[in-house]
Amino acid sequence: MYDLIIIGAGPGGYEMAERAGHHGKKVLLIEKAHLGGVCLNVGCIPTKTLLNSAKHYVHAKEAPEFGVTTGEVKFDLSKAMAWKNEVIETLRGGIGFMMKKNKVEVLFGEAKLIGSGKVQVGDTIHEGANVVIATGGSPFVPPIPGADQPHVMTSTGILGIDTMPKSLVVIGGGVIGVEFASFFSSLGVKVDVIEMLDEIIPFMDGEQAQAFRKALKGKVDFNLGCRVTAIDGHDVKFTTKAGEEKSIKADIVLMSVGRSPNLAGLGFEEAGLDFDRRGIKTDDQQRTNLPNVYAIGDVTGKSQLAHSATRMGEVALNTILGKKDRFRTNAIPWAVYSMPEIAGCGMTEKQAKEAGHNVATASLPLLMSGRFLAENGKKGAGSVKVVKDADTDVLLGVYMFGGLCSEIIWGVAAMIESELRVKDVQEIVFPHPTVGEVIRSTMFQF
Amino acid sequence: MYDLIIIGAGPGGYEMAERAGHHGKKVLLIEKAHLGGVCLNVGCIPTKTLLNSAKHYVHAKEAPEFGVTTGEVKFDLSKAMAWKNEVIETLRGGIGFMMKKNKVEVLFGEAKLIGSGKVQVGDTIHEGANVVIATGGSPFVPPIPGADQPHVMTSTGILGIDTMPKSLVVIGGGVIGVEFASFFSSLGVKVDVIEMLDEIIPFMDGEQAQAFRKALKGKVDFNLGCRVTAIDGHDVKFTTKAGEEKSIKADIVLMSVGRSPNLAGLGFEEAGLDFDRRGIKTDDQQRTNLPNVYAIGDVTGKSQLAHSATRMGEVALNTILGKKDRFRTNAIPWAVYSMPEIAGCGMTEKQAKEAGHNVATASLPLLMSGRFLAENGKKGAGSVKVVKDADTDVLLGVYMFGGLCSEIIWGVAAMIESELRVKDVQEIVFPHPTVGEVIRSTMFQF
Repeated sequence: MYDLIIIGAGPGGYEMAERAGHHGKKVLLIEKAHLGGVCLNVGCIPTKTLLNSAKHYVHAKEAPEFGVTTGEVKFDLSKAMAWKNEVIETLRGGIGFMMKKNKVEVLFGEAKLIGSGKVQVGDTIHEGANVVIATGGSPFVPPIPGADQPHVMTSTGILGIDTMPKSLVVIGGGVIGVEFASFFSSLGVKVDVIEMLDEIIPFMDGEQAQAFRKALKGKVDFNLGCRVTAIDGHDVKFTTKAGEEKSIKADIVLMSVGRSPNLAGLGFEEAGLDFDRRGIKTDDQQRTNLPNVYAIGDVTGKSQLAHSATRMGEVALNTILGKKDRFRTNAIPWAVYSMPEIAGCGMTEKQAKEAGHNVATASLPLLMSGRFLAENGKKGAGSVKVVKDADTDVLLGVYMFGGLCSEIIWGVAAMIESELRVKDVQEIVFPHPTVGEVIRSTMFQF
Repeated sequence: MYDLIIIGAGPGGYEMAERAGHHGKKVLLIEKAHLGGVCLNVGCIPTKTLLNSAKHYVHAKEAPEFGVTTGEVKFDLSKAMAWKNEVIETLRGGIGFMMKKNKVEVLFGEAKLIGSGKVQVGDTIHEGANVVIATGGSPFVPPIPGADQPHVMTSTGILGIDTMPKSLVVIGGGVIGVEFASFFSSLGVKVDVIEMLDEIIPFMDGEQAQAFRKALKGKVDFNLGCRVTAIDGHDVKFTTKAGEEKSIKADIVLMSVGRSPNLAGLGFEEAGLDFDRRGIKTDDQQRTNLPNVYAIGDVTGKSQLAHSATRMGEVALNTILGKKDRFRTNAIPWAVYSMPEIAGCGMTEKQAKEAGHNVATASLPLLMSGRFLAENGKKGAGSVKVVKDADTDVLLGVYMFGGLCSEIIWGVAAMIESELRVKDVQEIVFPHPTVGEVIRSTMFQF
């Protein structure tokens, strides 16, 4: 009898297992493939590792501007892939070590929920006082004719290629699509993005999304408001917003239109679990309709981010431990690791207006920062946009693109969670010279 | 008659001038040299620009590890210096533009305080309802025999060299000394640091300072507890802690033992201003003993950081505008832009103990972050250390070195100012995968 049985060792599951073990709980962690889940094996980590290699390429190319000459700069895909695989192996090992250290039992196999407290793997039924479902999600492939060809890949497939394509069509301009578009275009590959909606990255501020696309002009072609109708060999056929039929040829087609929760073959229906195609239904404590059965991460459809999964696991664990906690979504930061990077936290201007706020916004270009100028040159693209409630002065959101904003944004989560007003933030000292201090300067534009 | 006369256009003076102008005040800003003060012209900005060039050099050298090959990597000092000068010119222009935009009158010349409300430049006496002294500081050169030789330079001089030295001795292991040691050593120059105290960067956590020195092993030699007695030609002679007489030969000697407030020739004594050799005495609202005369920045000796000067200016302006404000020093972040970077905010373990706290600390290496591993390799040096009050769980300080921690640290200022406890920070979501999230992970080690 375990205290906890966790199905799925992604950032939701393994972090929860580690913390539960740290609290002295007897934990069984079941994983069908590799420790680390999608994030570590075919998601965040491999893409960021490859993007780091691409950044070295771009920086070496740009180096003469800053007084460094290099000779010819070449990208070696097989070496970059080897480093990516080494990073994955190292981090898998690290998780394995943490599981041992915290006395978490790890079982590799396919799990089936039998009901509250019972999980079957192979022929064995394991019993636990609590069961946590953290089975994650998978890339969604829409039923487009020709989508089953080998050169039509999801993010999983494209992370394993061994030859650089000359051209790439990305179907879907969300986070994954934009990161791969940035990676390949920075290495000289012709890249077209085809997006059904009128703007890329739907949760990004509209003005900034437009400015970001402008910064990629000449590197990536964005085809917005376009619907892909078929992939005929290497021809991606689509209908434009104006109703025109067009096609683009590409060596590889990346299918990145979204992800679906992993719900099939896990016994959920038979066990009477309440779910629909968007995911398992949970309350703010991550409880499902079944007693002592929790669900966390992508499988809930609440927020498809690794750090949200981790936080949901913490909330579920606190609930199990009898501590008051709640999964809040008002201050979850996110980042896109493109070049330039994109990051945000809190409400966009549009979301704040829809939520009934009397909204005020202020913006500044990142070139206000001496460090940003020094490191990115006079044409460096990027900006900060701050959204506040004009009546109460409360900070609602901060949106950025440019520089290393993925590492800067977390402080905004701390500010929003602390319910600071803009006048409070004005009293906080930021270090100089940094790119981050443009957030502070923007607060003085109101 | 001006509302404000500000003497000195550094980050204290020009930011205050801009904000006062934004509030509709009639402002006169007097500067004896260049807009931007030490920070922009011979301080933060030029060093960070040169360090950025050095980082491009180091990154290009390291690139093969990540799958990017280059020809021979060479550093071109004259090009790096040209870019540095262009950055300075651009930012000076930017300040000039902001002064015009906010209707600040700028006057170049040497100012003399005549008394409350009166400042003389040349033959003209300017009158203002308030006077703000923001005259900054200058490098302190101790009276060591031989310190007056041309190859013995302060930070100002070394920013203007036109030939790369083969060897460098840095006298003084504070922020400035460590940044130049890092710059030159990363470009292959033999660098020795001679520091009188037992550890470098006195306001850094001791354990981390030691780990940082270890990370520079083979690049920089640190001679701690050593007192320089003379510079005999190119021989820097010093006495070790054990009383041994030693000497190190160097092409250039950098004198970076500290900075002194600029107090001379400004009429302060005649005007009856209260000051001593550490600076002008001010209260928490930056008021001096003279009515309506304020002092901000390095000249006060309170905190020798550009962002502290800016904040002091804001406090002085709020006081003039009748708004309640106070210059607080409990949450001023700082950064050293070496490779690896160093940053901190709040109390070190030692300071917290001295302040009477029952202290608890927790640490984690930055290699806990998948992104840090991907970008820095398996030997990447760096860590996070969190200091809290064990009785109240209140966060007291965070210290880091490694990666781009200069851009990460600001959020700690937001957390300390919001008086968060560690259990509050545990509920804040950090984006994944980032280096910054190691701060959060460290909170779970208590």
